[in-house]
Amino acid sequence: MRIVQRNFGDRLTERILSQRSQVIVGLDPRVDRLPEELRPATPSVKGTAHAVMAFNRAVVDAVADLVVGVKVQVAFYEQLGCAGMNAYASTIRYAREKGMIVIGDAKRNDIASTAAAYAAAHLGTPDGADEVDDFLVDAVTVNPYLGSDGVRPFVEAAAANGRGLFVLVKTSNPSSCEVQDLDCDGATVYERVAELVAEWGSEHRGHSGYSLVGAVCGATFPEELGRLRELMPCAPLLVPGFGAQGADVDDIIGAFDTEGLGAVVNASRGVIYAWERPPYAEEYGPQRWREAVWAAAADMRERIWRATRPDDAV
Amino acid sequence: MRIVQRNFGDRLTERILSQRSQVIVGLDPRVDRLPEELRPATPSVKGTAHAVMAFNRAVVDAVADLVVGVKVQVAFYEQLGCAGMNAYASTIRYAREKGMIVIGDAKRNDIASTAAAYAAAHLGTPDGADEVDDFLVDAVTVNPYLGSDGVRPFVEAAAANGRGLFVLVKTSNPSSCEVQDLDCDGATVYERVAELVAEWGSEHRGHSGYSLVGAVCGATFPEELGRLRELMPCAPLLVPGFGAQGADVDDIIGAFDTEGLGAVVNASRGVIYAWERPPYAEEYGPQRWREAVWAAAADMRERIWRATRPDDAV
Repeated sequence: MRIVQRNFGDRLTERILSQRSQVIVGLDPRVDRLPEELRPATPSVKGTAHAVMAFNRAVVDAVADLVVGVKVQVAFYEQLGCAGMNAYASTIRYAREKGMIVIGDAKRNDIASTAAAYAAAHLGTPDGADEVDDFLVDAVTVNPYLGSDGVRPFVEAAAANGRGLFVLVKTSNPSSCEVQDLDCDGATVYERVAELVAEWGSEHRGHSGYSLVGAVCGATFPEELGRLRELMPCAPLLVPGFGAQGADVDDIIGAFDTEGLGAVVNASRGVIYAWERPPYAEEYGPQRWREAVWAAAADMRERIWRATRPDDAV
Repeated sequence: MRIVQRNFGDRLTERILSQRSQVIVGLDPRVDRLPEELRPATPSVKGTAHAVMAFNRAVVDAVADLVVGVKVQVAFYEQLGCAGMNAYASTIRYAREKGMIVIGDAKRNDIASTAAAYAAAHLGTPDGADEVDDFLVDAVTVNPYLGSDGVRPFVEAAAANGRGLFVLVKTSNPSSCEVQDLDCDGATVYERVAELVAEWGSEHRGHSGYSLVGAVCGATFPEELGRLRELMPCAPLLVPGFGAQGADVDDIIGAFDTEGLGAVVNASRGVIYAWERPPYAEEYGPQRWREAVWAAAADMRERIWRATRPDDAV
């Protein structure tokens, strides 16, 4: 008999409460910004992939007690070819072993049986008989441009395996407006997509009230966040754009429910390269980069927790 | 000095004329449908990846004289994990060595510097100094939901390397209407995206009149095809949905210009599993599957060529 695992919305909520954190750290290793000590002596693709892996392991170790999990941006691994995809597989395996919620930021999308192949790659097969587990994560990001038959295979795979997905609704980049903000009879495209997200997740709510179908809503559009929270009351929100992209704590408040739950906030560059940025550059510098990563994650955790759960200090 | 390669629109047009074909064959190897003789005796992931590679090589050999190129659907390789990505890299390398135009059907999308990482993976870096070539193809498919700053890095990489991209405009699946057909002040979302595609490609036209920024427009929506041809006069169209998805020659005529150029038509299942389908099943059967693949590609080539270039028999 197959054990059906817990709903992803519940798992995420429990992890937020047990870690006392709503922080996700983005593992976006840009090769030219790795700490000096990790760079390969002789440049080679395998050496670079190895350095990326060592960096990720150190970041995961540094933030393990401070965060909900990590978001791993597949693009930076795909850029390194097959060696990079091996590093991607090793990274997600390492983070999962540390008990982290691991989000594969893959933004995958395709139609019907092809979407099912992507879903199998990242979330497992609906029958749970996964012979290949290289790219399995707790949740994957999905692009909604193809509509329901491109998204439902991910929902089915997620439901069968206690995993989840985050559908792109309103992304954090400046030109997200070009398609997402088009006005359709009084609602924007992203609001229509939000309605679809609510529908896709409606049959998959857990005890926490949250579903396994979440949404990506950029921190760089604070006014829209509250509206999206209302349109998708059961969707966990993944909020990128904090820190390096310009958003601060005030900008993300709208993403949370009244208990400070229902959302996780991602920071990538602002945390993993903290030793290059004020105020951490002065205090730690490049030698003590691990501590700078720790401090940046700790500060982010405390500031968001305090703002969203004021009666419950870290 | 760096040699700037020919524009992708020109390369595609030349290849159509030299092959006397507008056919693209989709390499979507579904593991459970591989020919009996290629299936691994003992199931294993590596064995499956090996079988997929053997199948692709046989299909490429069978259709080499009949087609413009191949479209390789990354999802079916990602599903096999790292071993699958190795098979993906080997497949595109083999097809490129045979002189084919190779399209990576990856539907990648992300913002700014992350989109640039995907672009580097699939189309090369803007400075052309590619240390990693595992996933380099002649063109890649791109999802436009994130707008210009998610697409322009692909355009820049393509321009620098003589490569191209096909932006999803109107996809062939039934629920493409849910987002793509939303009405925005008298135009649909996909028509707005088509306008963006025309804009992105406007500075990158070749001698043929065609740009390096193409568009994916499903054969299953024949009435929309002609309209999209008008909205994007310089965009090469990649038309999926022929055959197994239901579209026939009459449905795709609108995608071509008056000379029968400017579009390529993809068939996947209808060609690569032809030995399972009438009329090829009766004539060839599973033993002579290579010949069935050849015959299906040859028939498709002739029927489309005849319909779009009636004065110029194959």
